[in-house]
Amino acid sequence: MNIYVAEFIGTAIMILLGNGVVANVVLKDTKGNGSGWMVITTAWALAVFVAVIVAGPHSGAHLNPAVTLALALTESFEWAKVPYYILAQLAGAMTGSFLVWLFYKDHFDATADAGLKTAPFATGPAIANRKSNLFSEIIGTFVLIFVIFYITGGELGKEKTPIGLGSVGALPVAFLVWVIGLSLGGTTGYAINPARDLGPRIVHAIIPMKGKGSSNWNYAWIPVIGPVIGATLAALLHLILKN
Amino acid sequence: MNIYVAEFIGTAIMILLGNGVVANVVLKDTKGNGSGWMVITTAWALAVFVAVIVAGPHSGAHLNPAVTLALALTESFEWAKVPYYILAQLAGAMTGSFLVWLFYKDHFDATADAGLKTAPFATGPAIANRKSNLFSEIIGTFVLIFVIFYITGGELGKEKTPIGLGSVGALPVAFLVWVIGLSLGGTTGYAINPARDLGPRIVHAIIPMKGKGSSNWNYAWIPVIGPVIGATLAALLHLILKN
Amino acid sequence: MNIYVAEFIGTAIMILLGNGVVANVVLKDTKGNGSGWMVITTAWALAVFVAVIVAGPHSGAHLNPAVTLALALTESFEWAKVPYYILAQLAGAMTGSFLVWLFYKDHFDATADAGLKTAPFATGPAIANRKSNLFSEIIGTFVLIFVIFYITGGELGKEKTPIGLGSVGALPVAFLVWVIGLSLGGTTGYAINPARDLGPRIVHAIIPMKGKGSSNWNYAWIPVIGPVIGATLAALLHLILKN
Amino acid sequence: MNIYVAEFIGTAIMILLGNGVVANVVLKDTKGNGSGWMVITTAWALAVFVAVIVAGPHSGAHLNPAVTLALALTESFEWAKVPYYILAQLAGAMTGSFLVWLFYKDHFDATADAGLKTAPFATGPAIANRKSNLFSEIIGTFVLIFVIFYITGGELGKEKTPIGLGSVGALPVAFLVWVIGLSLGGTTGYAINPARDLGPRIVHAIIPMKGKGSSNWNYAWIPVIGPVIGATLAALLHLILKN
Repeated sequence: MNIYVAEFIGTAIMILLGNGVVANVVLKDTKGNGSGWMVITTAWALAVFVAVIVAGPHSGAHLNPAVTLALALTESFEWAKVPYYILAQLAGAMTGSFLVWLFYKDHFDATADAGLKTAPFATGPAIANRKSNLFSEIIGTFVLIFVIFYITGGELGKEKTPIGLGSVGALPVAFLVWVIGLSLGGTTGYAINPARDLGPRIVHAIIPMKGKGSSNWNYAWIPVIGPVIGATLAALLHLILKN
Repeated sequence: MNIYVAEFIGTAIMILLGNGVVANVVLKDTKGNGSGWMVITTAWALAVFVAVIVAGPHSGAHLNPAVTLALALTESFEWAKVPYYILAQLAGAMTGSFLVWLFYKDHFDATADAGLKTAPFATGPAIANRKSNLFSEIIGTFVLIFVIFYITGGELGKEKTPIGLGSVGALPVAFLVWVIGLSLGGTTGYAINPARDLGPRIVHAIIPMKGKGSSNWNYAWIPVIGPVIGATLAALLHLILKN
Repeated sequence: MNIYVAEFIGTAIMILLGNGVVANVVLKDTKGNGSGWMVITTAWALAVFVAVIVAGPHSGAHLNPAVTLALALTESFEWAKVPYYILAQLAGAMTGSFLVWLFYKDHFDATADAGLKTAPFATGPAIANRKSNLFSEIIGTFVLIFVIFYITGGELGKEKTPIGLGSVGALPVAFLVWVIGLSLGGTTGYAINPARDLGPRIVHAIIPMKGKGSSNWNYAWIPVIGPVIGATLAALLHLILKN
Repeated sequence: MNIYVAEFIGTAIMILLGNGVVANVVLKDTKGNGSGWMVITTAWALAVFVAVIVAGPHSGAHLNPAVTLALALTESFEWAKVPYYILAQLAGAMTGSFLVWLFYKDHFDATADAGLKTAPFATGPAIANRKSNLFSEIIGTFVLIFVIFYITGGELGKEKTPIGLGSVGALPVAFLVWVIGLSLGGTTGYAINPARDLGPRIVHAIIPMKGKGSSNWNYAWIPVIGPVIGATLAALLHLILKN
């Protein structure tokens, strides 16, 4: 598989499953309605697991511009490919998010609350506070990127990473995402990935949804800038500790 | 173990455990009554895990006509064996489902709601809508089959697949089923397997259950046709991406 | 470690953790009060995981007279050792159970309901029905033993089984116990182990607990005889399928 | 990475994630509010998982003075390094705890109950009873340390332990912590680590939190002394069984 196709498909599957669980938990009359934070965080972890299995051997399974940036900063990924990776991730996130809408369309229609109808697309803060929310996204992404360096031994950026242990080797990254969600997802809903948040937010803005509420563009920069800062700090600390 | 016996026994155990958890969660006075979506999806994932451990080394552990079809379509499984695999899976699903009825019989008797008494047999839609429900089963099965190709590296169809890592090697398929349930199970209850739905529905129609409700034959074609379409699409995309 | 000491310590730790979670979920004012079936079944699975890690390399980690019996029946364990293994398991179960009582003593004292005070010791049926309850224990144990043969490749009975993959190799058995609890625990609470039920029931009968209720000796034979029958059937089927 | 830096960073990440989940579950208006014991114990297990991945290859990932003590007692770790390891762990725990406060600051401010505002820092007993509470911490830590010896084969204390299986090799310790929380966390909240409790308690005492309640210094010695006793007993039993 072509590396950009792999990033596109991997991110699309990740968002289909990751945003899909949010739809299942928050929308009206679904079988998982109200099943809570454990369901959401477990599914997001496994969404990453599945996406890494598909894309990992082909593109290294960045699936996240923050990962791509961190690897470029540490010189384990070519800067020339960065924009194409990010475009593939954004397009994948939009595709996955659009599929979630089609998949849960009857339940979007059945749900009255406009805020609940936005939740399966983009993240939003539990308590709106620019500084705190940005801090949350920085810290969440910092932990993600910093630990990924230790999981992969810096090998993640290589285009054709053989995942040791076959698909079982994708478990540690999934478990890392699980705990970030459980522990650090309580404030902003852990975007920790600019493509995961921006792509679906664009889809939300475009689609002709009945009773659609705000796409919250005021907030949209935080889950983009926060992860960029967090990834940069993690890359820097990694370089300092390595030498 | 003979390959057809392996498919039969594997599917029977999978359905005993998979439909068993639904009985435990929805029927009256059980110890797991009302324990929710996390319990159902976790048990289904582990039901597949256990069935793959038992049947994997013997038959490749298809356990699902959609898997058998996809492997035949990609020429990694002989067409001549397809009907016998499907028969073994269907018979296994009926056997497992019958055991669930015997196992939870007192609790079926204690439950008044006829709909709840059907739930441990066959899937049904949260919001009935032929087009949407079919779409759900297509997408759910597509993700299952498409990702399985990447987990097994196309080796699944070989009759005697050595599972790397021993039984631990069966974890990725289980985790894939887990996330499909968590994220894409909210609309139709993720049959994603014609045998898993049709076999138990036949059992429900036959058994002399007190206060039995409808077996919902109107709906029965969706969890058969949806998985067939989804598996076909996944096989096609896999072939396209491979070349 | 001596093989009998290993069985004793392994079973004691398993029961301390397994019965401990029941105390945590059902007794008054605990931090896990009312946390439900997912918590109980997950902890029981991990209790087995931990016990297998400790005892596995020394005694093969039977931890259960039904396992010992099944291995003797299939001639992968010496009959001469069977009584000593069972005694070690029973003594371990009593010790673990006694520790649970000491550990949660203040919470036993704070709990008024005598039934809830028995639950952390011995299993009891959700709906009392001798035939159904016996059937439940037969089926639950059958699945346990039948699948264990496929997980271990029949090697479990050897006294010094090297667990492949180090401690990670103990995961499949734990996940098997997890799904049996989730799916087949709803009727009788899945004893599936005579020592696990009888040992703690004896402790319950002996200890000077305030407001102690019945130890339910009427029911006590079911979680002993059921597992014996289930294990025998699983061993027979295994032998038939092997040849 | 320097061994002391590794202990510091590992413990800081562990406490950020471990105490972070408590904040997410108990503080007002978080996305994980009221999500319960399963969420808390799963996140703590994965917090240890992540910390072992980061620190394991460098310092052996003690992350806990009780572990350091047990390894020194069994002569698999040099006594000369013990005080520096403990200082690094304490400093890490304080840093992680301070980050949790910053991360969830808006939610600490929104929470009225002073007891709930202390919970994300230090543990406290469900039923206050010095003897029982001490016993709980002794038993919980005993299980932790005793089983760790069997997971690592005594190799944990070596400064540069290669974790077999890459990051997957860190799973057993995480699952051990999971079950200790589920089963033995119900009385005192399973500190089982003096640094994990004392460090954050000091932070709680120092920070200028609005509506701050007591730091419960009366109780503070129990989660320090209990783990020391439990670790010593586990080390002794390990030595006895080894010979």
